[in-house]
Order: sequence, then structure tokens, then C-alpha cells
Amino acid sequence: MTEIKEQINQWLAENRERGIQLLRDLVQARSTQGMERNVQELVIVELKRMGLEVDVWEPDGKELARSPYFASSRSEFTGSPNVVGVLKGSGEGRSIILNGHIDVVPEGDLDKWDAYPYSGKIIDGKMYGRGTTDMKGGNVSLLLAIQAIQALGVQLKGDIIFQSVIEEESGGAGTLATILRGYKADAALIPEPTNMKIFPKQQGSMWFRIHVKGQSAHGGTRYEGVSAIEKSMTVVEHILQLEKVRNERVTDPLYENIPIPFPINMGKISGGDWPSSVADLVQIEGRMGVSPEETLDEAKEEMEKWIDRLKEIDPWFETHPPILEWFGARWLPGAIDIEHELMQTLSSNYKDVLKEEPIIEASPWGTDGGLLTNVGNTPSVVFGPGVTEMAHFSNEYIELDKVFIVAEIIALTLLDWCEIE
Amino acid sequence: MTEIKEQINQWLAENRERGIQLLRDLVQARSTQGMERNVQELVIVELKRMGLEVDVWEPDGKELARSPYFASSRSEFTGSPNVVGVLKGSGEGRSIILNGHIDVVPEGDLDKWDAYPYSGKIIDGKMYGRGTTDMKGGNVSLLLAIQAIQALGVQLKGDIIFQSVIEEESGGAGTLATILRGYKADAALIPEPTNMKIFPKQQGSMWFRIHVKGQSAHGGTRYEGVSAIEKSMTVVEHILQLEKVRNERVTDPLYENIPIPFPINMGKISGGDWPSSVADLVQIEGRMGVSPEETLDEAKEEMEKWIDRLKEIDPWFETHPPILEWFGARWLPGAIDIEHELMQTLSSNYKDVLKEEPIIEASPWGTDGGLLTNVGNTPSVVFGPGVTEMAHFSNEYIELDKVFIVAEIIALTLLDWCEIE
Repeated sequence: MTEIKEQINQWLAENRERGIQLLRDLVQARSTQGMERNVQELVIVELKRMGLEVDVWEPDGKELARSPYFASSRSEFTGSPNVVGVLKGSGEGRSIILNGHIDVVPEGDLDKWDAYPYSGKIIDGKMYGRGTTDMKGGNVSLLLAIQAIQALGVQLKGDIIFQSVIEEESGGAGTLATILRGYKADAALIPEPTNMKIFPKQQGSMWFRIHVKGQSAHGGTRYEGVSAIEKSMTVVEHILQLEKVRNERVTDPLYENIPIPFPINMGKISGGDWPSSVADLVQIEGRMGVSPEETLDEAKEEMEKWIDRLKEIDPWFETHPPILEWFGARWLPGAIDIEHELMQTLSSNYKDVLKEEPIIEASPWGTDGGLLTNVGNTPSVVFGPGVTEMAHFSNEYIELDKVFIVAEIIALTLLDWCEIE
Repeated sequence: MTEIKEQINQWLAENRERGIQLLRDLVQARSTQGMERNVQELVIVELKRMGLEVDVWEPDGKELARSPYFASSRSEFTGSPNVVGVLKGSGEGRSIILNGHIDVVPEGDLDKWDAYPYSGKIIDGKMYGRGTTDMKGGNVSLLLAIQAIQALGVQLKGDIIFQSVIEEESGGAGTLATILRGYKADAALIPEPTNMKIFPKQQGSMWFRIHVKGQSAHGGTRYEGVSAIEKSMTVVEHILQLEKVRNERVTDPLYENIPIPFPINMGKISGGDWPSSVADLVQIEGRMGVSPEETLDEAKEEMEKWIDRLKEIDPWFETHPPILEWFGARWLPGAIDIEHELMQTLSSNYKDVLKEEPIIEASPWGTDGGLLTNVGNTPSVVFGPGVTEMAHFSNEYIELDKVFIVAEIIALTLLDWCEIE
């Protein structure tokens, strides 16, 4: 086994330039929502070159819409194919899904980028560009891991199912489509940007919108109206109180270093339409973090009941109750037993490669692992080379060394998990 | 004099239909900002029919811009003429400016209107339509008052200067242009919608915008950021405190029935751009009420110093001070001595016509009287037939009877003020 480890390490070193070129190609193919076809074409070429069985399909919006787990801002997926490549095992061993999303969030304000966001430019060992860290870097780690194993010339017992999915950034319709198509495995690994921490638990989340009512009046006689802006302050404070109550319940030591394990983030506010009128409506939009210990519906119900209690604080809300709605994206929470064998194998290989203990933490965000676990019955671990803090920001980058270290750890983990014939 | 009073009353009764038709014509000529020419053409026809000296000009944006009192959302006034008609007196008596703005605010959401906003439809003695109350009804009172005097066949000593001005709703550039053109008088009367109360004092106001800074982060790790939404709550509370401090200083009995004589209204809020990100910027827009006892600059300075004190409440504001800017419209406060002879004459004629004491109050909003008083040196009284509560709202209307009662009171006041030869 020591020899195999050395071979893998060496193969990755020898193929470093090719791996970097692959990542650059993927980054340069801008793949925001609806634009994923170009980059998937590159993935298909790579998978075919590797000799995998390749499955390419555009998810069926109508079929997805029938699932209670479907959440997306669109209902049509023409031009946005999912791609799956399977390295068949001999049939005896444990299978694994290697899942990475290929969609990226928009680049945002170009002025905030030091260089073109799809350049794939390398400075001091870091490749810059939208999607480098979230999560094309992780996807390349997966492909390199499989290729390194293939280079050994061995036959695995279990299947490796590589998935390049769309729509993770908008609620997971791509991964949901793989589940509906029948893909499942004994476990899954998702190389989202964890900065090489191992995440057995993932926070779920849902978006909400609260409409807070006031009563209009001229600003010069503002006492004749009721300011929805002032009322919305009461609502914000009340919801922060709910966040406190919910997080005081958390006892799992995995969260002990996290200031707020399941935040309720109020990220957007807008209301009123004239400086000298009293605002009669304010809308607050936010994201509610959901624990793996609860369902989305339980979390929704708690929020609904909490908002209802506003009338105890201010009689205005008795006659003018705020309206709560759930909209847009949502991510299921996910959890794998911390003693699960994939966790153990991954941790042990991490130690072997890096000569230190891995950091095992709960993830502050959701991934498609929530769908794989809860809908696909495939327990999922999240472990990847990117850095959370860079995801979704300008000047996003990834440290290239980490792409190769993670590839090495995953390759060794696959050998342990799927076993050599 | 009793005979003259009866003649005026009778003339107004006999010309009721003509007066109503004139008001309907003015209302039907939609005159939102930039669209005033059509309605001014009707005013010109009326003034020429009355035999007044008519002065029509488009204000010069460049000249206006040189005045420190200029405030408008536009810099060009092509297509938006001012109209002034003068009934020359013999030269011995006191002159008066009768000032009414002809611009109207936009009709807003058509669905909130029971009928087309420019119909001038009459139901139960009320004429409906944008501008009926604010303030074409008042303008018609002025024109009827002058016509009733003309019908007496008498010669007045003082000049009557009737002004049909643009831009009152956007900061008074129309009236400012009349002052720059040289119009002034011994006093002015403005029939803005006071519901027949007499307003010797008018609240000034200015618009402000505050930029409240936060620090962005992913909502799942919101503790890594600083919410501009939460910080803006501190700012709103702080400003409400300033409002309290400023209003505690008010001792003038004219304000004793007004809950908040000089409100600071925060009418608009917006910030954040993604439900699951921490908002890094919130903008608050509002209107600061200004007392006739202070200048706009003094009020500005007080607000600026107050905002600066936020850093004593929260050190965040030390390193990230909110940015305060003054923008858009502003109205100068105005005041006429409550013992001024025009006040006395007006009150006395009110009593004569209505057999009751007038209500004398301070106005909760600004009018062009602020400019006439402070820039044009023409002390101004506000007294008109419309109802404040209807101004700027859907289903705006005016009670037609009041248009004629106010015309009668003004006609008698003009006779006393300008005197018959």
C-alpha cells in the first residue's frame, strides 16, 4: 500500500500542469445559471478521455416540479445539462458518489475585481476567478483523484459515480435530478470549499420575506400615520431574539467554536417610496439557518409562530399582522454519523498525507449533501480545497497546492472505500 | 360697504357654474412637472379676458442655479412657463401677491383611484381629480375674487399681482423665478389647502439621505460581518431622539395642538442585495421639518452634529461614520407676524362671512411663502379651500362650496388691503 500511495503522489506531481490547465479551462467557461452547457462540454470530453460511462441530460422541469424538494428560480433547464461519469467497479464493493456543482454565482460588480473574473490567472500559486474556489477547484480534485487511481492500473470493487451538476447555487435542482434519475450510492463526498476541514454536518437554509405594514401620511404630519420602518425595527429585533432562542438549544460539540450555529440573516430591506411620506410597507428578506436535527417544515413552523407573537409586543401587529412568505432557494440540512466509515477513512488518509489531525466541524451553509442524504439516502461528507471566505466574493481564488493535496487524500480514500479487487 | 359685500356674494352665486367650469378645465389639463404649458395656456386666456397685464416666461435654469435658494430635480424649464397677471392699482395703496402653484404631483397608482384622476367629476358637491385640492381649487378662488372685484367697477389703490407658478411641488423654482424677475409686494396670500384655517407660520423642510455602512459576509456566518440593517436601526432611533430634542424646545402656542411640530420623517429605506448575505449598506431617506425660528443651515448643522454623536453610542460608527447628504427638494420656513394687518383683515373678513372665529395654526408643511418671505421680503399668509389630508393622495377632491367661500373672503380682504380709490 505504501507503494500505491507513492505512485499516486508521484502521478499527481507529474500531472500538475495538466490539472492546472483543466481547472483554467473550466474557470474560463463562465457557467452562471442558464450558461452551463459550455463548461459541461469540457467535462464530457474529459470523462470520455478517461473512458467512463457518460450520462448527459437536461433535467425535466415538469418532473422536478412534482418533487416537494424542488426549489429553483426557473422551471426550464434547456441548455443546462447535468453530466455523470461512472467508473464501474467489479460489483462487490461499496459505491461512492463524487458530487460537485459546475454552476457559479454571478461575478457581481466588475470594478471590484482586480482582473477579468474568468481569466484563471495565477499569481503566487493561487488561481483567480469566479468558481475557482466554489467549486471548480474541488471538481478538478475529484477528476485528478480518479485519474490517479486509473493510472495505477487496478480494478476497484465499488462504483465511482462522478457528478457534475447544475443549480447548486439556486437550490439544488441539478442534484435532485440525479436522484430522480436513479443515482444513489453507499456514501457521497462533496468537495465544496471547506478549506480542507471535514464537514459531517451541513446547515440547511431557507429564504423568507416578511411584509411589515404601516399607514401612510404626509411627513409633515407623520404622527397621523404609522411608520412601517419603525415597525420593521421591532420585527428585526424580534427575529434576532428567535435566533438566540434557537441557538441556545444547540448542544452538539461540533458547534462549540461557532458563535451562531444557525443564524437568521436579514440581508435585504426595502420600504417606503417618498422621503416626505410615512412608509406604509417594508419588506425584509432573509435566510433562516436550519439544523440537521430538524426538518425545514419544523423550522418554518417555529418562525411562523414566533412572528405571530409580535402582537403580544405591540398591538399594532394584532390588527396589521406581518405577512411571512418562503420564497426562492432552500437547502436541506444534512448529516453523516461522525463515526461513519467514510468519515474514518477520510480522516485517516488526511492524517497520512498531511501528518496532522483534520479539523472536523459543522458547516455553516448547505450543500447538495442535504438532498443526497435526505432524498437520495446517500450519507454525505463535505471536504474540499477551496476557502469559504472567498466564495461568492470578488477576487475569488484557490490555492493550487490544495487542489492536489485534496486530490491525493480523496484518491487514497476511494481506494479504501471502494477497495482494490 | 354692506352693499359691496352683498354685490360680491351675489356675483359669486351668479357665476358659480362658470367658476366650476374653469376649475374643471384646469384639473383636466394634467400639469405634472414638465407638463405645465397646457394648463398655463388656459390661465393666460382667463387673465387676458379679465384685462390684466399678462407676463409669461420660461424660467432660466442657469439664472436660477446661481441662487442659493434654488432646489429642483431639473435644470431646464422649457415648456414650463410661469404666468403672472397684474391688476394695476392707482399707485397709492398696498400691493399684494396672490400666489398659487399650477403644478401637481403625479397621480400615482391608477388602481387606487375610483375614477380617472383628471376627470374633474363632481359627486355630492365635491370635484374629484389630481390638483383639485392642491391647489387649482385655491387658484380659482383667487381668480374669482379678482373677477368679483372687477365686477364692482371700482378702482383699487394697490396692485394685485396674481401668480400662477410652476415647481412648487419640487422646491419652489417657479416662485423663486418670480422674485428674481422683480415681483414683490407689501404682502402675499397663498391659497394652499389649509381647510380654511389661517396659517401665519409654515414649516420648512429639507430632504436628507443617510448611508449606513456594514460589512458583508455570508449569511451562514453572519457573525463574520456587520449588518448595516441592524446598524441602521440604531441610526433611526438616534434620529427620532433628535426629533424629540428639537420639539421639546418649541414654546409657541400656535403649535400647542400639534403632536410633533417639526417632525423628522424617515420615509424610505433600502439596503442589502441578497437574502443570504450580510447587508453592507443601507440608505435611509427622509424629510427634516424646519422651524420658522431657524435657518435651513442651522437645522442642517444640528443634524450633522447629532449624527456625528453616533460614535458615542456605538464604536462601529467611529470607524464607519454614516454619510449624511442633503438632496432633492427643500422648502424655506416662513412666518408672518400674527398681528400683521393682513392677518387681521383676513381674520375679520372670515368672521364676517362665516360668523365664526377662524382657526389660526402653524402649517405642518412648507409652501412658496417661505421663498416670498425670506427671499422676496414679502410676508405671506396661507389660507385656502382645499383639505391637507387629500393632497397627494388618490381620490383627491375639493368641496366646491369652499372654493366660493374662500373667494368671497379673499375678495373682501383685497378690498380692505388694497383699498378702493
